[in-house]
Amino acid sequence: MAQNQEVSNTVGKPIHCRAAVARKAGEPLVIEEIIVAPPKARELRVRVLCSALCFSDIHFWRLKEPHGYYPRIFGHETVGVVESVGEGIEDVKVGDTVIPSFLAYCGECPDCTSIKSNQCSKLRFELSPYIRDGTSRFSDTKGETIYHFGYTSGFSEYTVVDITHVTKVDPALPASRACLLGCGVSTGVGAAWKTADIEEGTTVAIFGLGVIGLAVAEGARLRGAKTIIGVDLNPDKVEIGKKFGITHFINPRELGGKLASEVILEMTDGLGADYCFECVGLPSLSQEAFTCCRKGWGKTIILGVDKPDSQFILNSLVNNHSGKTITGVQYGGLKPNLDIAILAKRYLDKELQLDLFVTHEIKLEDINKAFKLLIEGKCLRTVIWFDQERAKADGVTFNEI
Amino acid sequence: MAQNQEVSNTVGKPIHCRAAVARKAGEPLVIEEIIVAPPKARELRVRVLCSALCFSDIHFWRLKEPHGYYPRIFGHETVGVVESVGEGIEDVKVGDTVIPSFLAYCGECPDCTSIKSNQCSKLRFELSPYIRDGTSRFSDTKGETIYHFGYTSGFSEYTVVDITHVTKVDPALPASRACLLGCGVSTGVGAAWKTADIEEGTTVAIFGLGVIGLAVAEGARLRGAKTIIGVDLNPDKVEIGKKFGITHFINPRELGGKLASEVILEMTDGLGADYCFECVGLPSLSQEAFTCCRKGWGKTIILGVDKPDSQFILNSLVNNHSGKTITGVQYGGLKPNLDIAILAKRYLDKELQLDLFVTHEIKLEDINKAFKLLIEGKCLRTVIWFDQERAKADGVTFNEI
Repeated sequence: MAQNQEVSNTVGKPIHCRAAVARKAGEPLVIEEIIVAPPKARELRVRVLCSALCFSDIHFWRLKEPHGYYPRIFGHETVGVVESVGEGIEDVKVGDTVIPSFLAYCGECPDCTSIKSNQCSKLRFELSPYIRDGTSRFSDTKGETIYHFGYTSGFSEYTVVDITHVTKVDPALPASRACLLGCGVSTGVGAAWKTADIEEGTTVAIFGLGVIGLAVAEGARLRGAKTIIGVDLNPDKVEIGKKFGITHFINPRELGGKLASEVILEMTDGLGADYCFECVGLPSLSQEAFTCCRKGWGKTIILGVDKPDSQFILNSLVNNHSGKTITGVQYGGLKPNLDIAILAKRYLDKELQLDLFVTHEIKLEDINKAFKLLIEGKCLRTVIWFDQERAKADGVTFNEI
Repeated sequence: MAQNQEVSNTVGKPIHCRAAVARKAGEPLVIEEIIVAPPKARELRVRVLCSALCFSDIHFWRLKEPHGYYPRIFGHETVGVVESVGEGIEDVKVGDTVIPSFLAYCGECPDCTSIKSNQCSKLRFELSPYIRDGTSRFSDTKGETIYHFGYTSGFSEYTVVDITHVTKVDPALPASRACLLGCGVSTGVGAAWKTADIEEGTTVAIFGLGVIGLAVAEGARLRGAKTIIGVDLNPDKVEIGKKFGITHFINPRELGGKLASEVILEMTDGLGADYCFECVGLPSLSQEAFTCCRKGWGKTIILGVDKPDSQFILNSLVNNHSGKTITGVQYGGLKPNLDIAILAKRYLDKELQLDLFVTHEIKLEDINKAFKLLIEGKCLRTVIWFDQERAKADGVTFNEI
């Protein structure tokens, strides 16, 4: 009832609400009143329930011009309820629970109609500061435009997303778990299941045990991988990793000058790991991963987001005729519109562990503390709640951080 | 009868015969008398019928120390008849027709027992100057050791190969066609069929139209590819290419400064070719191939043999999350012991074109002319005949070159 009331009051009108605005590269977000314009044709305005902080938000928040745009609203692991819809929307209606996605789905191009690709040809992923139509729906109270991020911008009580960037999700899923499916967890599990297609009894090496890396482990565990090697500089990841199926932990700082790839080659009789995942975004780690990848059939999968213009070098003769494959994918190769529902079901069936990824739940006011926690490697996912009533209904106890 | 006679005369004894010996890097081969020791345990001595010249012979013949070894006997596209066998050989007998292979097959390791790999773990491919046991069976009349090449050394009337490096072949196959299956043609067709697994109706781009590149085209043609784009600097390849299914030809010298990758992207609505093959051995071409490879699902396959220590650079952010895959394989990913028989059958069934690859057949005396022809791009395969009687029996007319 409250929801319908809200709809009738705001439809077609700008909404004044609170958002966490990045005003300068690398500086604390400012919680301020913003104005969210109504959705145009084939857009939805979404009342955000909660959003999780992913390291990609931090990665792009650190970027100065020409890759950074300010003021900007980050956040791309989000779940919300549709507040109003623009013209031409049929499949999604007011009150539906939706997850905005940075990848688009036009439904008609060769990529959208193929199971092999998640890279819509018509609506390509770009590091755009706008919603899909090339304009912004956000402004501050002085009338200045605020930029979007990743076609999602979930760090706001309300956001506007294009219909091609949204997936309906089972409302039975707790909001603090649903939002995780927007990026990191799906990327890791998807890479394990779809891109690598991990087989039972195999060996997996994961470079970087943030949420993406741990989600790769979770995917590998569910596929029955025999050995799951985790590589991370943070010793806290030993215990965390075990919960997601990591069987062996390597801390590169404790190898006395040896490389992690050398240790992994030794562990695998000189042959290498069947699947190697780079989950940090460092070209040097991609090389490490490729080096210790199984000759003959090994797959190296690059998931980490590196700096613009960085390069990845392969030694040609040594590596290029080895039968190893390298690939890099977005969102673990998954199609949001098809695969979010599968991941949600696996969670509801108590197979896929999502709860363990949520280490903190906080109020919007504490969002800058979440940035600090993630930078320091002291959390997995911090969920930032925008809808206090829903948080209460979901029985959330906020963390003091 | 002659053959049995020969066997009884030479078994267990050194054989004096003629070979084309590379005495210095890049200098004409010397046709001289050499001594071929009898096979040791699990080795075969093979009377060579004929060998074809592959560009890899030239590539390695050009290398000075530390990568070059002299004097050396090159040649790795060879067919011959078993003259004698060492102890412990059961599957191959005197008189069998065999193709020596640079790849080994131990039959027991995880790679040999998997369909996914052709890289034996026990007997790895190395740029070794010896036969598999780490010694040579060749010496000159002054007693100096002559090095082997690629575990094959087919530019000799007799050679010795380890049992793990040999595949029996249907004697019905003409010798001048059989020898082709030892490297280049198998590499190209194998890469199209096994590594790329080309699907009907797709677009293929081939960088470099030597024998490997043309064999990729032949493989793509047989798989029903719709568009087969060939890229080569040599305008003679336009007409040759058509015979192997090339539908579009790009000469990078005629693009007015544009890159071939740009033209291929334009031809494919900006999306790229489904499969790209590098068949020259230049890292810059690997990058070209990867650049115009289909986002979402494209496969770039590196077949060319580049210089030792050369590097291949990818621009990370641009390319690494595109869903494209890069791989490099030896021998097109084929397993000689399984796949040579399949290729031979497809030839005998008049599907796979092998005849067109043989542009010249010559006597041993003219072998240096074959090197010149191939370097100048004026031939595809030149077959060098070691067994004149067999050449006569096969009705060969030698070319004057």
